[in-house]
Amino acid sequence: MATINRNYLKLPGSYLFSMIAKKVNEYSEMNPGADIIRLGIGDVTKPLIPAVTKALHNAVDEMGNAETFRGYAPDLGYEFLRNAISDNDYKSRGCDISPDEIFVSDGAKSDCSNIQEIFGLDNTIAVCDPVYPVYVDSNVMAGRTGDYDEALQRFKGVIYMPCTAGNGFVPEIPDEVPDLIYLCFPNNPTGAVMKKDQLREWVDFARKNGSIILYDAAYEAFISESDVPHSIYECEGARECAIEFKSFSKTAGFTGLRLGYTVIPKDLKAGTERLWPLWERRHGTKYNGAPYIVQRAGEAIYSDEGRAQVRGQIAGYLENAAIISEGLMSAGYEVYGGANAPYIWMKTKDGMTSWEFFDYLLKEKQIVGTPGSGFGPAGEGYFRLTAFGTKENSIRAIDRLKGDS
Amino acid sequence: MATINRNYLKLPGSYLFSMIAKKVNEYSEMNPGADIIRLGIGDVTKPLIPAVTKALHNAVDEMGNAETFRGYAPDLGYEFLRNAISDNDYKSRGCDISPDEIFVSDGAKSDCSNIQEIFGLDNTIAVCDPVYPVYVDSNVMAGRTGDYDEALQRFKGVIYMPCTAGNGFVPEIPDEVPDLIYLCFPNNPTGAVMKKDQLREWVDFARKNGSIILYDAAYEAFISESDVPHSIYECEGARECAIEFKSFSKTAGFTGLRLGYTVIPKDLKAGTERLWPLWERRHGTKYNGAPYIVQRAGEAIYSDEGRAQVRGQIAGYLENAAIISEGLMSAGYEVYGGANAPYIWMKTKDGMTSWEFFDYLLKEKQIVGTPGSGFGPAGEGYFRLTAFGTKENSIRAIDRLKGDS
Repeated sequence: MATINRNYLKLPGSYLFSMIAKKVNEYSEMNPGADIIRLGIGDVTKPLIPAVTKALHNAVDEMGNAETFRGYAPDLGYEFLRNAISDNDYKSRGCDISPDEIFVSDGAKSDCSNIQEIFGLDNTIAVCDPVYPVYVDSNVMAGRTGDYDEALQRFKGVIYMPCTAGNGFVPEIPDEVPDLIYLCFPNNPTGAVMKKDQLREWVDFARKNGSIILYDAAYEAFISESDVPHSIYECEGARECAIEFKSFSKTAGFTGLRLGYTVIPKDLKAGTERLWPLWERRHGTKYNGAPYIVQRAGEAIYSDEGRAQVRGQIAGYLENAAIISEGLMSAGYEVYGGANAPYIWMKTKDGMTSWEFFDYLLKEKQIVGTPGSGFGPAGEGYFRLTAFGTKENSIRAIDRLKGDS
Repeated sequence: MATINRNYLKLPGSYLFSMIAKKVNEYSEMNPGADIIRLGIGDVTKPLIPAVTKALHNAVDEMGNAETFRGYAPDLGYEFLRNAISDNDYKSRGCDISPDEIFVSDGAKSDCSNIQEIFGLDNTIAVCDPVYPVYVDSNVMAGRTGDYDEALQRFKGVIYMPCTAGNGFVPEIPDEVPDLIYLCFPNNPTGAVMKKDQLREWVDFARKNGSIILYDAAYEAFISESDVPHSIYECEGARECAIEFKSFSKTAGFTGLRLGYTVIPKDLKAGTERLWPLWERRHGTKYNGAPYIVQRAGEAIYSDEGRAQVRGQIAGYLENAAIISEGLMSAGYEVYGGANAPYIWMKTKDGMTSWEFFDYLLKEKQIVGTPGSGFGPAGEGYFRLTAFGTKENSIRAIDRLKGDS
């Protein structure tokens, strides 16, 4: 008789953003006239830039013509895109990452959750607390953790690294050496960044101990300060200990278009085994590539026109972040992030729990945010707002919040 | 220290189609003038139909406009697409599959390889021999099999069901009861079909034993005979024992566009546990949906215009299949499949092994096919050709093959 993977039963409740969506839908159904401002899920609102829609139209025409039609994509992704990524995201920053070390995919979420498959089930993982839930949940599903401890709100067997106002939301190196270390900077949910010397300490630690850093750089495009690394490969030695994930979702508004990539240096090893061939095998066996038209869209963000338009879009979101951050501060809230990231991390009002504050904002202000506790127990009492709304909605949200503050 | 998933090391050589691609590339580089006819990998060659390119252009315009832009898709896929699938692929055939039981994805390959994750590692799997390699390889990677036995060319712990000319390439129910049964009809690679009464026996067997059938119906659109089921849910009781995978790749030439879906009935259980919530959780945690524009493209194949154009495309490929089948037969080859499927399954020439015949065809005839042994030891001495080339190339391939037959 068939049996299920019982590790799934360890997962408490539903996936955070699905849970939020359900709550908001319920509220909307009961209050059909409500004018809800959504600053919850990290979804963009600005339309695709003209360079991208032009590339898409062109590629669609190619696909409709027998002479230029393309079927299955190459396993790693089209060379035109991998070359553009290697040149623009790496070589231009002095990082020696070749096109063959880049695996194009349908997004960083898939890659961040699938990467654990190429590691043994006996690896210990370390994550920040609070943390993007996908890193932990994908390891729970695989059986790489113990049960969920309701009291601690943590899974047994996972090394949690608290990120608090006290450490500037940058984790300290843990006492116990983890095998796999998930780091995301600029951080989701706190909006914090790691300076280059801070990240270098992690690289040195991983090299010394044979750990692998799984570096999620999905928010790299929002970095506005010069001493914040855009890639972990800016740190010497990172090729020996790090895998990097990048996304077009936040950089260029591809959340509904789906494109990302993962970098695995060819010489990167876990113990004596190279990781590149394992990921190549996984990619070839379990995946069939991102759509040709979307890969062309990705290439277009690296053209002169595309780069200028992307910069404009990011600047717009960072303006929203400033509006929200400053507005919250002037309303008396304690506020973090928002300078090199699209996320604003705030303390809740009057000592409310994160979910109490969620309900308060939804019901009293018709604003949707994300409860900090949904990202881990160290996020309790915090709340995440995103800068991905429109400027108008960012201003209106602040006006509503100030209404009775 | 990080360690790898050593199950990957059990996999012999590289993924079949990657291996073929490498061999063909090497030959092309050494023979730059060679006029190679590719009838190997099951990739389509006809351009996207006008109904689809029109839908894509419209959707791209929507994505470039702030008023109509769409970010993250709903977890299960857009309702407009799931409704179209439910109505056209199921309700029209008397199958009671609701839109909420349909999970839209980037293709059947991903789903077929990921589905095993929601089952326990102690489940035994049964596959046809020969078989599409993804079913077995994904289970090897997960650790659900033993080592590879070089002599037998089979993984220990897997139940292989030989499909031979003797049983019409339809497997017999095995003595040992498997927990998970992978079936693919119309079959890849043999092109064989199961009649409804044959499939019903499998459904009855699975229900009686608590097994789950994982039914890959990717080639359903090629069925031309009336007593061949298009969906396993045409069999009574299948909702209690079957998951079905469907693809837009072969139906409408989406190999480079990426779209498929999986059906999990809400009441389907493994033992006492429902499977739908597990797959929903996986979808929500590890995946972010197929692109909006591609989901609109999928919807377009169900319009009157789209259906007519799809029918025309399929008819063209089936014409190729007939040209190849009849040509091979008149050249003295033993030939199967090709009537309800885009695949022609043939005996090699003069007792050659499958890979010998591959090399012979590549080097002497500049034709690329797929060695039958790549699909399993029962495929040794067989070879797969696809009808997905152009009509011109199908005719030219047969002319070349007849050249010295």
